[in-house]
Amino acid sequence: MSFQLARRAERMNPSIIREILKVTERPGIISLAGGLPSPDGFPVEAMRAASERVLREAPREALQYAASEGFAPLREWVARRMTAQGLPTDAAQVLITTGSQQGLDLVGKVLIDPGSRVAVEAPTYLGALQAFAPYEPEIVSVPCDDDGPIPSELHRAKGARFLYLLPNFQNPSGRCMGAGRRLAIADAARELGLPIVEDNPYGDLWFDAEPPPPLSGRHPDNAVYLGSFSKVLAPGLRLGYVVAPAPLGPKLLQAKQAADLHSPGFNQRVVHEVIKDGFLAQHVPTVRARYRTQRDAMRAALERHLPAGCRWNVPAGGMFFWVELPAGVDALALLPKAVARGVAFVPGAAFYAADPKPNTMRLSFVTVAPAQIEQGVALLSQALKEGV
Amino acid sequence: MSFQLARRAERMNPSIIREILKVTERPGIISLAGGLPSPDGFPVEAMRAASERVLREAPREALQYAASEGFAPLREWVARRMTAQGLPTDAAQVLITTGSQQGLDLVGKVLIDPGSRVAVEAPTYLGALQAFAPYEPEIVSVPCDDDGPIPSELHRAKGARFLYLLPNFQNPSGRCMGAGRRLAIADAARELGLPIVEDNPYGDLWFDAEPPPPLSGRHPDNAVYLGSFSKVLAPGLRLGYVVAPAPLGPKLLQAKQAADLHSPGFNQRVVHEVIKDGFLAQHVPTVRARYRTQRDAMRAALERHLPAGCRWNVPAGGMFFWVELPAGVDALALLPKAVARGVAFVPGAAFYAADPKPNTMRLSFVTVAPAQIEQGVALLSQALKEGV
Repeated sequence: MSFQLARRAERMNPSIIREILKVTERPGIISLAGGLPSPDGFPVEAMRAASERVLREAPREALQYAASEGFAPLREWVARRMTAQGLPTDAAQVLITTGSQQGLDLVGKVLIDPGSRVAVEAPTYLGALQAFAPYEPEIVSVPCDDDGPIPSELHRAKGARFLYLLPNFQNPSGRCMGAGRRLAIADAARELGLPIVEDNPYGDLWFDAEPPPPLSGRHPDNAVYLGSFSKVLAPGLRLGYVVAPAPLGPKLLQAKQAADLHSPGFNQRVVHEVIKDGFLAQHVPTVRARYRTQRDAMRAALERHLPAGCRWNVPAGGMFFWVELPAGVDALALLPKAVARGVAFVPGAAFYAADPKPNTMRLSFVTVAPAQIEQGVALLSQALKEGV
Repeated sequence: MSFQLARRAERMNPSIIREILKVTERPGIISLAGGLPSPDGFPVEAMRAASERVLREAPREALQYAASEGFAPLREWVARRMTAQGLPTDAAQVLITTGSQQGLDLVGKVLIDPGSRVAVEAPTYLGALQAFAPYEPEIVSVPCDDDGPIPSELHRAKGARFLYLLPNFQNPSGRCMGAGRRLAIADAARELGLPIVEDNPYGDLWFDAEPPPPLSGRHPDNAVYLGSFSKVLAPGLRLGYVVAPAPLGPKLLQAKQAADLHSPGFNQRVVHEVIKDGFLAQHVPTVRARYRTQRDAMRAALERHLPAGCRWNVPAGGMFFWVELPAGVDALALLPKAVARGVAFVPGAAFYAADPKPNTMRLSFVTVAPAQIEQGVALLSQALKEGV
C-alpha cells in the first residue's frame, strides 16, 4: 500500500482479550473471560428518566460542542467525591475523559517519550499496556506480593516516568493493597522522584469493607488519579475522569482537545442527572451484593472442582479471580480445550509486561449468573484434568 | 513538579479558538468566531424518541462494552451512504470514532513519525494541526487558489506521509473544490505516492448543488476518508467515522482500542435509530435552508458594511466566510477592538501552518441569527474603520 506506517504502529497489537472475546461470544460458550459488568446492574430506568430530562430541559446545551474540560457540575461532583474519599480535589483539577481508557492514553501521550521507562505491577492491566505502547516506553515490572508492589523492589522503577498502579481489586489479580502498603509505596515513590498513576475502576465494588483511601492522597502533587463511571453505572456511556496536579492539567487538557475535543456532553449531563442526588448510594450496594453472591459462587465452584495444585485468591471486591495452575501447565494451551468444552477464560500471560507466568488465568465472576459460573468452572476443571 | 513531560507535549498548545471562545462567550458578545452549529437545527424530538426506544429495546447492549469497530448497523449505514456518494465502501472498512477529531488523532498516531512530513492546505483546519502536532510532524503547506490546492504545486508534498484535505466548504476558507480539481489532485497525489486524508464534516451542508464526489473515490486504496455526524445531527454526541483501505484498518482499530476502547454504544445506537429510516433526507434540507438564509444575511451585511479593500468569498455551503482585509491590517490586533465593541471572530493567521496571512479572518454565519449577523458585521466594520 502507499501508506507508510509510523514506527509506533509496530508496537500496536490486537488485544488478545478482544480476540478471545470474539471467539467466545458464540452462543453456548460460558465466558469467564470478559471483564463485562453484569447488565443486570445497569440503572436503565434512571438512565431513561435522565435522558428524557436532559433532552427536555437542556437539549441545546447537551447536543452542542462543549468545554474540553468536561461538564462543570460533573467535575464538581467528582471533586467532592474524591475529596471525601481522601484525595483533596478542586474541580479545576478534574478532566472528564471518554472512559478511563482515554485517561491512560492522555497520560501516556503527555508523559512517555520513546525509550523512556514506565513501571507497572506484575501482572498489570492489559489495556494500560496497550494505551502506553504506541508511545514506545520501556516497561519495567515491579515484583509484587499479595499486597501489591513490594516497597523494597521499587528502586527498579527509579528514573521511570511514572509507576502505574491499580490498588483496588486489581485487574487481573483481584488483590487490594492494604493501607500500610499504600503509604509505604507512596512515600517510597516520592523519595525516588517517581510519579504515581493510580487507576481505580473497581474501588466502589467492595464486598466487606471499603478499601483504604487512594494512594494519591498521600502526596497529591506526585500523582495522577484515574476514575470511571463504567463499573458503577455503565461502560457504554464511555465516561471516566482524571484528577491531576495543577502543573500537569494544561497539557492533559491540550492532549484531550487534540484527541476528541471533548467527551459527549449529552452523556455527561445524563450521568450527572442520574448521580447528582445521591443515586449511587442506593445503586452501588445492589451491584456489590450481586457481585458478592457471584464471587461466592465462583469460590465455591473453584473449591469443588479445581484439581489439587491449583491456587487462587479470594477477591474482596472487583470482578476477578486469579488462578495459579500447577507448575508446567500452560493456560494458553489449555484455552482451546476449554473452549471446545464450552468455557472461556483469559490466560494470565497476557497481563505481564515481561516474564509471564504461563500457569495463570483470570476468571471473571461478574458477567454470568451463579449457575453458569458453577457449570463453567466444572467444564474448565474437566479440560484441566484432561490436559494435565 | 516531579513529572517529566514527553517531548511531544511541547508541541501541544492551547487552541487559540477555544481561548477566544472563552472570552467571547460572555453575554452580550455577538460571536462570529465559533464553528458551533445552530442549535435550532438539532433534532431534539427525534433524539428523545430514539433514546427512549434504545433504552427500552436494547438497554443491556447499549450500556455494555462494545466492539471497538463500532455498532455494526451504523457501520453498514455509513458504507451504504459512502458508496452512494461515490466512495465504494464495505462496512468492514468503517471505524466509528469519537467525533471526527478522533479520526484525525488516530490517523496521526498510525502514520506520523517524528520529523516525517505531512502536507496540508493553506489555510487549513486548526483542529487537524492540533491533532497531528503531538506526533511531531514537519508540516508542509501546499499553495492553494480558490479551487483548493494547486496541482502543479503538489510536488512540494512529495515524500509526505499524507496530504490532508477538506474539499467541501473548507474550514476556514469556505471553498469547495471542483470536480476537475479533485481528479487532478487525486491523480497527482497517487502519481507522487502521496496518500490522501480527506476530511468531510461539511459536505452535506450545500446550498445550491451537491458537491462533487469525494476525492477518495478516485483511488480508494490511496485515501482515508473522515466523516462526522456533528453537523447533520449534533456535535454533542461526538460521533464520526473513518473509512480506510483494508491494509490500514487493523492498525487504526488497534489505535482506537488503545485510545478509548470504543465510542459510546448508547450514542451509536441512538444515532442509528434516528437515521436508519431516511430521517436525514428530511432533516438536512432544513439545516441547509437555515444556513443558506444566514449565509445570505452575512453576504448582505458584508456588502453593506465592510470598507473598500476588503475581499471575501461567497461560500456555497458549510459554515464560514473567509475575509481578506486590506494589506497591512492585522486581524489579531483588530480582535480586542472588535470584542470591545461587542463582536468576535477568529483571526485567520491561526489556520496557517506557516507563513500566516495576518490580514485574514474567519466569520461563522451559523451560530447567530440573521439580525445579529447584521449587527455583528456592522460592529466589526466600525472596529475596522477605527483601526485602519
